[in-house]
Amino acid sequence: MKENINKNITLREIDFAKWYTDIITQADLCDYGADIGATKGAIVFRPYSYAIWENIQFFVNKEFKKHKIQNLMMPMLITDQAFSKEKDHIAGFSPECAIVTKVGEKQLGENYIIRPTSEVLFCHHFQRIVKSYKQLPLLYNQWCNVIRWEKTTRPFLRNSEFLWQEGHTVHNNSEEAIEFAKKMINLYAEFVEKKLAIKVILGKKTAHERFAGALDTYTIETMMQDGQALQAGTSHYFGQKFANIFNIKFNNSNNQQEFVYQTSWGISTRLIGALIMAHSDDLGLVLPSNIAPIQLAILNLMPKNEEVNQFVKDIEKILNDSDITYLINDENKSAGFKKSETQIKGVPLMIEIGKNEAETRSLKLVIRHNLEVINFNLNEDKNLVVKIKETLEKIDQDLLSWSKKRFDDNLIEITDFNDYQKIITSHKGYIISPFCGEIECEKTIKEITNTNSRCVPLSKYKEESSCFKCKKENSPWTYFARSY
Amino acid sequence: MKENINKNITLREIDFAKWYTDIITQADLCDYGADIGATKGAIVFRPYSYAIWENIQFFVNKEFKKHKIQNLMMPMLITDQAFSKEKDHIAGFSPECAIVTKVGEKQLGENYIIRPTSEVLFCHHFQRIVKSYKQLPLLYNQWCNVIRWEKTTRPFLRNSEFLWQEGHTVHNNSEEAIEFAKKMINLYAEFVEKKLAIKVILGKKTAHERFAGALDTYTIETMMQDGQALQAGTSHYFGQKFANIFNIKFNNSNNQQEFVYQTSWGISTRLIGALIMAHSDDLGLVLPSNIAPIQLAILNLMPKNEEVNQFVKDIEKILNDSDITYLINDENKSAGFKKSETQIKGVPLMIEIGKNEAETRSLKLVIRHNLEVINFNLNEDKNLVVKIKETLEKIDQDLLSWSKKRFDDNLIEITDFNDYQKIITSHKGYIISPFCGEIECEKTIKEITNTNSRCVPLSKYKEESSCFKCKKENSPWTYFARSY
Repeated sequence: MKENINKNITLREIDFAKWYTDIITQADLCDYGADIGATKGAIVFRPYSYAIWENIQFFVNKEFKKHKIQNLMMPMLITDQAFSKEKDHIAGFSPECAIVTKVGEKQLGENYIIRPTSEVLFCHHFQRIVKSYKQLPLLYNQWCNVIRWEKTTRPFLRNSEFLWQEGHTVHNNSEEAIEFAKKMINLYAEFVEKKLAIKVILGKKTAHERFAGALDTYTIETMMQDGQALQAGTSHYFGQKFANIFNIKFNNSNNQQEFVYQTSWGISTRLIGALIMAHSDDLGLVLPSNIAPIQLAILNLMPKNEEVNQFVKDIEKILNDSDITYLINDENKSAGFKKSETQIKGVPLMIEIGKNEAETRSLKLVIRHNLEVINFNLNEDKNLVVKIKETLEKIDQDLLSWSKKRFDDNLIEITDFNDYQKIITSHKGYIISPFCGEIECEKTIKEITNTNSRCVPLSKYKEESSCFKCKKENSPWTYFARSY
Repeated sequence: MKENINKNITLREIDFAKWYTDIITQADLCDYGADIGATKGAIVFRPYSYAIWENIQFFVNKEFKKHKIQNLMMPMLITDQAFSKEKDHIAGFSPECAIVTKVGEKQLGENYIIRPTSEVLFCHHFQRIVKSYKQLPLLYNQWCNVIRWEKTTRPFLRNSEFLWQEGHTVHNNSEEAIEFAKKMINLYAEFVEKKLAIKVILGKKTAHERFAGALDTYTIETMMQDGQALQAGTSHYFGQKFANIFNIKFNNSNNQQEFVYQTSWGISTRLIGALIMAHSDDLGLVLPSNIAPIQLAILNLMPKNEEVNQFVKDIEKILNDSDITYLINDENKSAGFKKSETQIKGVPLMIEIGKNEAETRSLKLVIRHNLEVINFNLNEDKNLVVKIKETLEKIDQDLLSWSKKRFDDNLIEITDFNDYQKIITSHKGYIISPFCGEIECEKTIKEITNTNSRCVPLSKYKEESSCFKCKKENSPWTYFARSY
């Protein structure tokens, strides 16, 4: 591998946080800061990152359709009165809620909360429309923006405004609701591994880490290249808790009134941050092919040469009949500039066409993540489209296996809290420990180490053992890590 | 045609406004009112109306791509300071702006405006990124929600919160910018006529009716079945007005600093209201096939009969290989209920399958908008998919020609303001008059009649004449109508 350094990008080894923002700026993913005319911690999703989000929406919507989930759209302002009904929920969110008190110069009679999440509105709606078990389940979803006024913000990872999807369902029994909450976390897990090529841990949150108002929170947890954890999606089971407060009843099959059982689940534009930190390198962004806005960049290095242009056109003609997303770059810029730009943007595959390639009707497929080169001759080798598609598939497999290896290589078992304290500050990766899961115990751990549990994995890691902190017996093995 | 009345729907003739809300309720398009826990005048877009909006997004996005327009996403909260820079713009919008003054219990140091439109944020962004003529034009768009706190609201037509797309572009000369603003209004016109099957008038707004801050506003105007006008989309040319205020400069090809030229353009969920009021009838919704969430409903009238089920499966098999969006209704409900529901939902085509149909392998295609019936025999007649697709196409042509005819039949030429005053209160349709277009003259007309001009058509109606109000010579023929 050649010496390949981009002087605009800080090395990961030197400063991971700075590397992250350099990637974002250089790959033109977003605009942010005090001068954008918006709230501190809000970002402009530039076309390139928004295209990634649109691809995420496309794939996830397709999966939702298979489960007969219907998209709809709720208002974004919630009345103070409605929002204040559920105490746990409001306690969890209200310090971060943006509140509308005025319209123009006029003070409003009632304040309105900009949705930090929409349980309250869905509950109001369900209360109005749910009548009989025959209607159930109701499986709804919305893609929208929310506001959570966080003190410390970071582009994509933690924004005061972000984009997400929130699903909300109503069921006529608890088993079905729990089942559905699990189905959704499985859907997310499969999506993140298959399309984003990031290894996930599928688990249940401890009581301390549960969503405000939920009885159970299922989660998918990922690991970034610096070893820190990033929660990539959650799915909550509410039981009848909201139904009780918002009075959402249905006539069951015995013609008796009963409270409904609910779930909610979501993924957000955080996933773009996860994508960056899971795969990218010191040369720029690295994207799996499924989610990349452009899968293949064809660099025309001599846009004024007839023969070269003709060869590029021949390749374009072949690609036109495929579903490969490609871009022809025939700008009048230097080869070096064009290559570097393609690398920075994380385009999974690149073809450079110069005089030599046109004459021999041959081309080199350059793979972004490992910089490997595949030779291809248009006259001799058979199917270019098949070759490209195979290579794209291989890219995603590679990235996922790198991600899995990185996780496994950096996982440590710890059974004693003293060891945990020693290792947690410097360890780059997850720690797995038997943990009682009790709120008081976790509070203590948090106070001392400023770390939280990530989750109890759904597929058992090992037989239960005594809690690494309080020594309580039969504690399930639980993941811990510093996290974003 | 049989006597066909739905007792849950007020007749159009009796009360058009009541008919409109009955259609919305019966077709399950939205939930609204004081009890939804949101702002007065906000609505819940139920899955059926949201699916229409998704179809609109799909078609319009496809057209945008052809023009190399890129989607992105801006924040929704604008700082008070940023918002207050452009005086005309703020004067137009500020009385309707929702303002965030608090987060949790804390008063903020600066207030934030929820976007009523995003010119201000785009301008901030352009100021930061535009450097050279080589980057131009920049063609951006976002699909998002906005808030305009209107006093009188009406589902879809005028909501305090609504969904829309807003495009914003930057150009290096005025000709190109004007050209682009016109391109966009033409794109909208073609979309509304081809996909929504509603006749449009393409024109320019008078000075009085222009968008706050624009030098020119192009518009498409439609007519509803009660003869009232509905503005369906607008495109604005800003010249260098915003660029001057927000200091958006570029280096032109002579290496001199120059202010950019801008446009913006949008369509919104109002179009759903337009769809309803343009086509629906006393039996329920009527939808053109292109935009209908379901194009064909197959009613299995005997879901417990094996032979009937088999015939339905045979039809399904044929449809599976097509791109027709269909729904099989095999619920255990009466034939009458299922038919009525299909009609209310405006499904363009319906097939009812009972014992007789299964035995003879024949079926009836029932067309929603004219209640016509087409007979088809699966053994004798050749291609069912082709027949259905032809019929769907014909449906959209019919609806558009009905819409055109309705417009033409109800257009009146008026050259004298006394006649205008007499006719405007009772006339159901547009009026076209020579009009000077001056602000003072239009203000007077508005004071006296409470009506505004709709637009000066881009294709000249007739030779200029003297203004119907002030008698000024060379006044262009201009459309007037009561409007939504």
